[in-house]
Amino acid sequence: MSKCKLAVIQMHIEDKKSTNLKTLNSILHNALKEDVDMVLLPEMFCCPYVTSKFPLYAEPEGGNTYRYLSNLAKVNNIYLVAGSMPEIDLDGKIYNTSYVFDRNGDLIGKHRKIHLFDMQIGDTYVNESNTVSPGENITVFDTEFGRFGLCICYDLRFPEIFRMMVDSGAKAIMVPAAFNMKTGPSHWELLFRCRAVDNQVYTIGCAPSTNYNDTYISYGNSIAVSPWGDIINKLNGDEGYFVCYIDFEYINNLRKELPLLEHRRCNLYK
Amino acid sequence: MSKCKLAVIQMHIEDKKSTNLKTLNSILHNALKEDVDMVLLPEMFCCPYVTSKFPLYAEPEGGNTYRYLSNLAKVNNIYLVAGSMPEIDLDGKIYNTSYVFDRNGDLIGKHRKIHLFDMQIGDTYVNESNTVSPGENITVFDTEFGRFGLCICYDLRFPEIFRMMVDSGAKAIMVPAAFNMKTGPSHWELLFRCRAVDNQVYTIGCAPSTNYNDTYISYGNSIAVSPWGDIINKLNGDEGYFVCYIDFEYINNLRKELPLLEHRRCNLYK
Repeated sequence: MSKCKLAVIQMHIEDKKSTNLKTLNSILHNALKEDVDMVLLPEMFCCPYVTSKFPLYAEPEGGNTYRYLSNLAKVNNIYLVAGSMPEIDLDGKIYNTSYVFDRNGDLIGKHRKIHLFDMQIGDTYVNESNTVSPGENITVFDTEFGRFGLCICYDLRFPEIFRMMVDSGAKAIMVPAAFNMKTGPSHWELLFRCRAVDNQVYTIGCAPSTNYNDTYISYGNSIAVSPWGDIINKLNGDEGYFVCYIDFEYINNLRKELPLLEHRRCNLYK
Repeated sequence: MSKCKLAVIQMHIEDKKSTNLKTLNSILHNALKEDVDMVLLPEMFCCPYVTSKFPLYAEPEGGNTYRYLSNLAKVNNIYLVAGSMPEIDLDGKIYNTSYVFDRNGDLIGKHRKIHLFDMQIGDTYVNESNTVSPGENITVFDTEFGRFGLCICYDLRFPEIFRMMVDSGAKAIMVPAAFNMKTGPSHWELLFRCRAVDNQVYTIGCAPSTNYNDTYISYGNSIAVSPWGDIINKLNGDEGYFVCYIDFEYINNLRKELPLLEHRRCNLYK
C-alpha cells in the first residue's frame, strides 16, 4: 500500500461557478474510470483568477460548494484535494483556501495561502493582497499511503515552507496553482523540480488550462515530479488530466543513497 | 561601476600540483586579455578530487600555493576566487577551503565547505567526511561592484545557506564545485537556476573539466545564471573558460517588480 494513484485535473475556468463544477464533473468522470485514489484540482477552480472577483465568489467553510465537494469525495470513495476557492470567514476576511476531503467526505486538511501574490512585471500585474488575507500555517494531511503536504501557487516560491512540511513528515507536496504567461515559462517547471530535489519528495502542480481570452492567463502545464527531479507527467496548456503514481517507498531508498536531509547543518542556520 | 566582468575557468586537473598551476596560468593568460575584473576557479583545482589525496595535497593558509595565488591576483590586478584546495590547520584537521584575494593580493574571503559530500548511488561512491572536517560559517566578501557570497559544491544543495548569504547582502554567489556524472546531468543546472530565482541573485558555478580517466569524473558544465534564472553562459565538459558580466543594478530592478524576498513570512518559519 505504498503507491497512491493520483489524477491531476487541468480545467478551463469560466465565469459561472455552476459551469465550472460541471466541467469538473465531466473530467472527473473520465479520471475515475482509471480507479484513482486521489484527485487534485487547480487553484481557484470554480472562480476566475481575478482578485476583485474573489469576494463575490467567496463562501464560508461548509458552504454549498464545500458540501458539493465533500459529497463528490464520499460517493466516489476518493481523496479530493480540492484545488482552491475563495473562503469568507466569520469576520468577513477572504482567504485563498484549499480543502482536502477523505474517502468519507470528511475534511482532513485545510490550507489558506500563506504568501500573497503581488507583482508587476511589464504589463503583467497582480495584487492579491487587495482582497485576500494571508494564511498563517503550513498544512499536511494523512492517508493510508503516507503524509502529504499542501500549499498554494505563490507559496511554491518559498523554500522555507517546503522544509517545514517535509520536517513534518510530508513526502508528496500538492500545489494547486496558476502561474501566468510571464512567470510560467520561466519558472514553473524549475521550481517544482528543485523543490522535489532539495527535499527528496514528490511535487505535484495543478493549474487551470490556458485561455488567451482570460484577464489573467494561466500557464497550465500541470506537472508531477519525482524526488530525483524527473518529470513523471506534464500537460501543456490544454484542458485535460493525467494519472500518475506517488510511490512512498522510493523516497526511503533515495534518502539512504543521498542523505541530503540528514546532512543539513541546522545548528548553523539562523 | 555596477558591472563586474568575470572569467570562469574550467580546467583539466592532473595528479601533479605544479602541472595544475601551469594549466591555470595558461588559461588565465587568455582570459586576462579580455580585461576581466574577477576570476573564478574550480573546486580542488590543484588536487585530484579523491578524498584520500586531500591530506597529501593539503597546505596551511599562507603556504606555497596560497602565496602563488595571492601574487597572481596582485600582479594581474584582479579579484581571484581561488576555487578550493585542501587546507590543513594548526591541529592537523583538513578542510576543503576557498580563498578569495583582492586586487592587492590580500585575503578578503575564506570559505571552508560546510556540507561534506557523503553518498552512494549505484557505483558512484564518495565519502568526503573520511578525510575532511566541515566549515562552520557562511562566507561573503566585498568588492567595488557589490557583495558576493561563496560556497563550495555540495553546499549548493542547501537553500538555507543561500538565504543566509543573501540576507547578508550577497547579490552574486560563487560556487566552485565538481558534480559527478550521476548528479551533474540531473541536478547541476537545475540547482544553479533555482537558487538564482529563489534569491534573485546571480549564481556562478565553476568545475574541473570532464576526464573519463579520472577516479571521480567531474561533470564540468561551468555555468553563470541570471537572477531571473536564465543561463548567461555555460560550458560543456571541455577545458576552457567563459567571460560574463555580473550586473548588480539589474537585481534592484527585478526585486522591485517581484518583491520575493520581502514577501517572505519569516515570523512563520521555524
